[in-house]
Amino acid sequence: MPAALPLKPLPKSIATVSLSGTLPEKLEAAAAAGFDGVEIFENDLLNFDGSPAEVCRMATDLGLRIMLYQPLRDFEAMPAELFARNMARAERKFDVMEQLGADTVLVCSNVLDIAIDDPARAAADLRQMAEAAARRGLRVGFEALAWGRHTRTWRQAWDLVQRADHPALGLVLDSFHTLALGDDLSGLDAVPADKIFFVQLADAPRMSMDVLGWSRHYRNFPGQGDLPVTAFARAVLQAGYTGPLSLEIFNDEFRAAPARQTALDGLRSLIWLESEAGGHALPAPPVFDGVDFIEFAVDYVAGRELAQRLESLGFVHAGHHRSKAVDLYRQGGINLILNAEQDSAAAEHFQLHGPSVCAIGLKVDDAGRAISRARALLCKEWREPVGPDERVIPALRSPDGMLFHLIDDLDAARSIYESDFDLRVPAQADSAGAGLTAIDHIAQALPAHKLDTFVLFYRSVFGMQAESVHEIADPYGLVKSRAMVSADQRVRIPLNVSESGRTATGRFVAAYAGSGVHHIAFRSAELTQTVEQIDRSRSAMLHVPDNYYDDLAARLALDDTLLARLQRLGLLYDRDGHGEFLHTYTEPFHERFFFELVQRSGYLGYGAANASVRMAAQAKLRQG
Amino acid sequence: MPAALPLKPLPKSIATVSLSGTLPEKLEAAAAAGFDGVEIFENDLLNFDGSPAEVCRMATDLGLRIMLYQPLRDFEAMPAELFARNMARAERKFDVMEQLGADTVLVCSNVLDIAIDDPARAAADLRQMAEAAARRGLRVGFEALAWGRHTRTWRQAWDLVQRADHPALGLVLDSFHTLALGDDLSGLDAVPADKIFFVQLADAPRMSMDVLGWSRHYRNFPGQGDLPVTAFARAVLQAGYTGPLSLEIFNDEFRAAPARQTALDGLRSLIWLESEAGGHALPAPPVFDGVDFIEFAVDYVAGRELAQRLESLGFVHAGHHRSKAVDLYRQGGINLILNAEQDSAAAEHFQLHGPSVCAIGLKVDDAGRAISRARALLCKEWREPVGPDERVIPALRSPDGMLFHLIDDLDAARSIYESDFDLRVPAQADSAGAGLTAIDHIAQALPAHKLDTFVLFYRSVFGMQAESVHEIADPYGLVKSRAMVSADQRVRIPLNVSESGRTATGRFVAAYAGSGVHHIAFRSAELTQTVEQIDRSRSAMLHVPDNYYDDLAARLALDDTLLARLQRLGLLYDRDGHGEFLHTYTEPFHERFFFELVQRSGYLGYGAANASVRMAAQAKLRQG
Repeated sequence: MPAALPLKPLPKSIATVSLSGTLPEKLEAAAAAGFDGVEIFENDLLNFDGSPAEVCRMATDLGLRIMLYQPLRDFEAMPAELFARNMARAERKFDVMEQLGADTVLVCSNVLDIAIDDPARAAADLRQMAEAAARRGLRVGFEALAWGRHTRTWRQAWDLVQRADHPALGLVLDSFHTLALGDDLSGLDAVPADKIFFVQLADAPRMSMDVLGWSRHYRNFPGQGDLPVTAFARAVLQAGYTGPLSLEIFNDEFRAAPARQTALDGLRSLIWLESEAGGHALPAPPVFDGVDFIEFAVDYVAGRELAQRLESLGFVHAGHHRSKAVDLYRQGGINLILNAEQDSAAAEHFQLHGPSVCAIGLKVDDAGRAISRARALLCKEWREPVGPDERVIPALRSPDGMLFHLIDDLDAARSIYESDFDLRVPAQADSAGAGLTAIDHIAQALPAHKLDTFVLFYRSVFGMQAESVHEIADPYGLVKSRAMVSADQRVRIPLNVSESGRTATGRFVAAYAGSGVHHIAFRSAELTQTVEQIDRSRSAMLHVPDNYYDDLAARLALDDTLLARLQRLGLLYDRDGHGEFLHTYTEPFHERFFFELVQRSGYLGYGAANASVRMAAQAKLRQG
Repeated sequence: MPAALPLKPLPKSIATVSLSGTLPEKLEAAAAAGFDGVEIFENDLLNFDGSPAEVCRMATDLGLRIMLYQPLRDFEAMPAELFARNMARAERKFDVMEQLGADTVLVCSNVLDIAIDDPARAAADLRQMAEAAARRGLRVGFEALAWGRHTRTWRQAWDLVQRADHPALGLVLDSFHTLALGDDLSGLDAVPADKIFFVQLADAPRMSMDVLGWSRHYRNFPGQGDLPVTAFARAVLQAGYTGPLSLEIFNDEFRAAPARQTALDGLRSLIWLESEAGGHALPAPPVFDGVDFIEFAVDYVAGRELAQRLESLGFVHAGHHRSKAVDLYRQGGINLILNAEQDSAAAEHFQLHGPSVCAIGLKVDDAGRAISRARALLCKEWREPVGPDERVIPALRSPDGMLFHLIDDLDAARSIYESDFDLRVPAQADSAGAGLTAIDHIAQALPAHKLDTFVLFYRSVFGMQAESVHEIADPYGLVKSRAMVSADQRVRIPLNVSESGRTATGRFVAAYAGSGVHHIAFRSAELTQTVEQIDRSRSAMLHVPDNYYDDLAARLALDDTLLARLQRLGLLYDRDGHGEFLHTYTEPFHERFFFELVQRSGYLGYGAANASVRMAAQAKLRQG
């Protein structure tokens, strides 16, 4: 029978190797995020110019416990002389641990070729070490490395711990080592909780490469990768484990990124994972009902220009805000807000980023619950000052400072548009336009090292799914795209990153001083009709080379009439196993963002096959 | 009997996918480097807003032949209906080729699961296609992809070509596909030369990952990676092949890097490879006799300060240049030149980079031959204006503009120091100092994407070997280090790169506006004596934390007296299977470069195990 799951949150910890900086900077960042403790990674101590006792004092002052010291390597099952040296080494490290105030040391399974293949010998060695630790009031946690010489799986490690049978010897579990091997979790929930000394949780993207390299460079936080870390954590909780949940993440990008954001992501990942695994629960994620509005930060001039661009696409000016320099443009179910109000969050956004999307409104089933969940996941809330009779819409800041407003109809007699705007045209009259009916997707461009941060944010706070990564060849480098999609697919947010600063994505990130909305796709039920209705002289649709259509004909054997129509209107075409996709792009607005018009018939993707045509055309535009 | 090797250089070509930019930019870069022709990669054409005939015109105007159009995929051994569609597709692509003026099309072996496992069928399909091509005066080259469904090796592809037996069908060989599989080259030199239609040469770093991902992202130019491309090229030349040597390189960094440098590297790699493989020969690489001098660009103030730093390390002011504001400092066999001359290459260097190494003098057996080789490998030469009676030292520019002077004694009665300097002390008297006797190594920091460029430069121009890559944990990100070493190990140039801009290496690259010498290691026969003799109050030696020595004791069981001495003097220690290494660092000079003092007893490395201690100490210094 599995034990009843603990409802109290477990202590949270992070290994110093997961964070960038000097040891004091790492401790400071872990404390600032709200961790309860840390694992001290040996090299961080060696490179620190101060005694272990000073490290202990520093951690205590910051409210952090030192929960683990690590690691001792290549310890057990060694030829006698080398084992004697190992024991002497252990005693010196126990001295360090006493100063550190750490009571548990991690021993990884031996990886050396000279290690002896004899479980009895290994168990005896571990017992001897545990006995030495116990004399100092310390404990030894043994962990199976996936590339260990003779001990690779948690079951083998558990077998050695059982054979050694010493109260100061227990198991350290690391999700990466188990999941990377595709090892079976069954039985993990039956390990006695008091023999699980410590649990490390790591995720990773699926990669086909050697496990050691994968582990050393590409681990990431739970919820950022593709491994079934939730199942692993569930088994551990079912076992009755109530010790720390810790993060030991070797990741080249984390080593370089500012430690504070990394630490915040880490704690968010553990809080989310604990809830997903059946431990201390979070409020349920929101159920989405699509995008309600997109808000652009503009000034007067950019606002006029953007309004003209929108009108050329069939949008109409639907109203002016009751108390602010804010205008509403509408078409079909799409609401676009142009905010030129001074002394507002939008104005700050405009100052930093130029004309750009500063807020997105999402329709949810229960905004209060969504905000509670976000708060528990360490999100910052935001409240805009409002005028009399105007709706207070709860909002939270995404990791780049953009606002997500969460809108439900639970406590509103009138829509936010009716309450906040002087509507100039009746809601029905403006639905015709050029036939654009909804926001299909909103694509963001991010600095390459921020992708993990945003995947975790959307996955944990909004309960979205991460789709697989697409690679797109921009003329000046690769762009990677990964879409975050709500359960019912009504909110889609593709995230684009590029290691190159010369791609459209890389340039956006450089110019925009970080991440932001890079394009917005509007959906039409009949894109050819829509494109024939819009004012193409003013809407600045992107030109598609004739060679594209020659190849399309050769590749897909399209009907000649359809092909001619696509070419005449400059539409791109793709299909997958589910249906068809027609789309077209506008030229960029102020090099900041552009619009896409799409027709989606069952198709699940975003036209990635055609994106390089778009990028080449944009590059040509830039070059004039 | 292998055919006699061709002595005339073969035509050189590059696939447009190897270069960044729009199609016109790619063609321009290939022409500027001096290529004879290009392979047109299909997507580059599709994204180009102009007809294939215009591409042909553009190439012709630039003096480039379009040598290959590629690729047609998943062509042979398909179910009948799909094969009929493939033939229709081929006819449309033949139309394109006629416009392009390309006479050969590349067909890759089918990768689809539905491909039929029947060599006779595959051969019949290829024959049918070749027949269709021949009707237009075109040819078909068939290539085995390493991940093809049924055809993966060059032997299987050759078998199909033989079975098909059509004059318009031949083999395309790609070194990556053969070498990535570790496939056998024997028999390759016996393929009739007229059946080898085209040869693509790619190298790659050794990686344990799936071949497809390896091929799509990590290929590089011959001489930049670890594959035995030379053996492959030798077999092709032995076969009597006289067609183009071409580069088809899928590399994420090349996609982002400026196309001109990439194209230059590409042509250099082919010229080098052809010579290594026994084709058109280059003058032999230089035989080195160590580093003769290092020249620093300074102004008066930085020069004074650097002089003091050098004097604290036991260097003496040995003389002033006869005609320029240049001073010579000496110790043992080490010559350091401080150049503050205005209107010189050094002054330009100082203006761009601040106080920094602007030139290195290397002792070679024959400077004239070394310069001829460099010239043939597309290096730029440099001649400094000289005064009467001063030696003219031939020099070449490295890829970052730093000068390498090449010094032999073939035509000199006096050393360059005797000819150019008023020597203030006899050559013998200054040899004592603090016991530093030679330059052990000169480390350069490079932007991450430049590593391949420099590895190829040192390997091809100087005939150096590339050692394996070390990874070092800087507090703010990983640093990768790869040493280039001359055959007799008398010239050692470790190259350091970092993806992170926050590491010591990354900061150097940002501040230095590119690559440059990051540190210089001087060798002593007795480092403890040297360090006791130098003026440590002024030499600014880097402090090493006590924790380092506690761990050293635990790890290596060093003799207590030695350990105490190391700790007192702040020396780091490492050993390998060959011997011991003692070393210590100075603090950085103007955040530009620092010095290292080393004692090397058989040891082959550079103390990488201790480099993270140094990086942490440097980071602490920066933070004050």
